[in-house]
Amino acid sequence: MKKSLFLFSIGLFLLATPTLAQTKPDAKQHRIVFHLASADTVVHRTLVRQLNNLLEVWPKANIEVVVHAWALGFMRLESTVSPEIKVLSEKGIAFAVCENSMRRSKLTKEQMLKQASYVPVGLAELVMKQEEGWSYIKAGY
Amino acid sequence: MKKSLFLFSIGLFLLATPTLAQTKPDAKQHRIVFHLASADTVVHRTLVRQLNNLLEVWPKANIEVVVHAWALGFMRLESTVSPEIKVLSEKGIAFAVCENSMRRSKLTKEQMLKQASYVPVGLAELVMKQEEGWSYIKAGY
Amino acid sequence: MKKSLFLFSIGLFLLATPTLAQTKPDAKQHRIVFHLASADTVVHRTLVRQLNNLLEVWPKANIEVVVHAWALGFMRLESTVSPEIKVLSEKGIAFAVCENSMRRSKLTKEQMLKQASYVPVGLAELVMKQEEGWSYIKAGY
Repeated sequence: MKKSLFLFSIGLFLLATPTLAQTKPDAKQHRIVFHLASADTVVHRTLVRQLNNLLEVWPKANIEVVVHAWALGFMRLESTVSPEIKVLSEKGIAFAVCENSMRRSKLTKEQMLKQASYVPVGLAELVMKQEEGWSYIKAGY
Repeated sequence: MKKSLFLFSIGLFLLATPTLAQTKPDAKQHRIVFHLASADTVVHRTLVRQLNNLLEVWPKANIEVVVHAWALGFMRLESTVSPEIKVLSEKGIAFAVCENSMRRSKLTKEQMLKQASYVPVGLAELVMKQEEGWSYIKAGY
Repeated sequence: MKKSLFLFSIGLFLLATPTLAQTKPDAKQHRIVFHLASADTVVHRTLVRQLNNLLEVWPKANIEVVVHAWALGFMRLESTVSPEIKVLSEKGIAFAVCENSMRRSKLTKEQMLKQASYVPVGLAELVMKQEEGWSYIKAGY
């Protein structure tokens, strides 16, 4: 009888752990995916400033910026925010460029900042991150 | 004692199943709700192209586009993307038009593409889909 | 043996309760965080109308509007929608202004509507609300 109760308590503990983890996410590990579709360089400049602000309050946050559609200039060699992108990349922020958008814009990886990573379909990346529990933020106005 | 352990194991299994389902969503059933508020026909054309791209990688995805506010022209009979909407609808994508927005724009269902479905309040639809676990994507710049 | 089975049943019930609560969210308590970044007064006017529409269908919804970046004019004393904001605030909607954006725009709390509440970083607020299960809506086009 006592042994059965002991086994049951172990079971309770094992089950309760993931359940609690879901209802009360670890405040120390924030995960955020940004959706950048805009060609507007004012939006680009604001985004890099906002990413810096976020890292100041949450230095260990997982942050990925998905760059697609009209936004590819953000990650081109001649980007108006290339110095900021280099610094943010060193701090751990990922910049995931949509390969579909690149083909459509006839851009090659040689024309992009070396801080870029690549995903086949930007929107699919935004969905998969949300499915994994990441928060979603649409950049821009 | 053995019977008690057996019952406990059954219980563990039953409880673990939904918990695992939550932490590891079925990769094969993606559900995405798009938020279209823009009157810009460049945004409309880009959206239908992006929906096609998504269906190419995820043919079985559940996709709904909520059309409200300034975006009703997207679903009007004279929409610049009506051929694309017909094809996407045949492939299973739903286009949910906000009835609140329609009243405000003095539009009737006779003026809309027959591929339209209708929801009383577009924003409420976007919220309910997220509550059911759908990923959210804001269309546009 | 019977006692062990009884304890196990209690355990099952206690564990099942939060699990069910997660898979089937209470339809009566909707929680929505709006992301307002735009300076466009047409966007502001549309947002207050949409918030009223939402409250008509969901009078008890928890709604917070995060106001940041270019959108601070929405909450200034001279806001074009200040009467609507007063009414919406009385109905329970929160308007959370980003203090980072305020410093950058050299605005003080004396220049803002008294219905404003304040958060240190608007984007962090949008993330934390999503982590707590709130639905996210980006306002604007």
